[in-house]
Amino acid sequence: MEKSVFYHAGCPVCVSAEQDIVNLIGNDKVEVVHIGEKRDRIAEAETKGVKSVPALVTPNGNVLHINFGASIADVKG
Amino acid sequence: MEKSVFYHAGCPVCVSAEQDIVNLIGNDKVEVVHIGEKRDRIAEAETKGVKSVPALVTPNGNVLHINFGASIADVKG
Repeated sequence: MEKSVFYHAGCPVCVSAEQDIVNLIGNDKVEVVHIGEKRDRIAEAETKGVKSVPALVTPNGNVLHINFGASIADVKG
Repeated sequence: MEKSVFYHAGCPVCVSAEQDIVNLIGNDKVEVVHIGEKRDRIAEAETKGVKSVPALVTPNGNVLHINFGASIADVKG
């Protein structure tokens, strides 16, 4: 199975959700991307439909916005 | 591992998220509860901290609100 991608921005809400998601799905099945640090991947996240972080994009392309840490606009700053 | 519990209310957003979560976590690791039908479990969800559905409560008690289908108040009607 293709990997899911978990986008986050290092906020406390993000880190907590990341630990839960990695525990639930399995470390080998999810790529974790910190778009606050890897800023060239912000556009990629937006293209996939990510409106806020933390968010999980599933292998079939669905976007699950999990809780609410920050909007993409806030991450762009 | 104890099971996660996925609370939903049958809304389109809920059903879509349910399929994704069950696919990602595995059918045997998550209990799916339709609180629109099993109304006696609304209070249980609230006690766990669920504010809106769909939501996933992890085995360690964290609540992941996934996208937004309906508030608990709306489900109560």
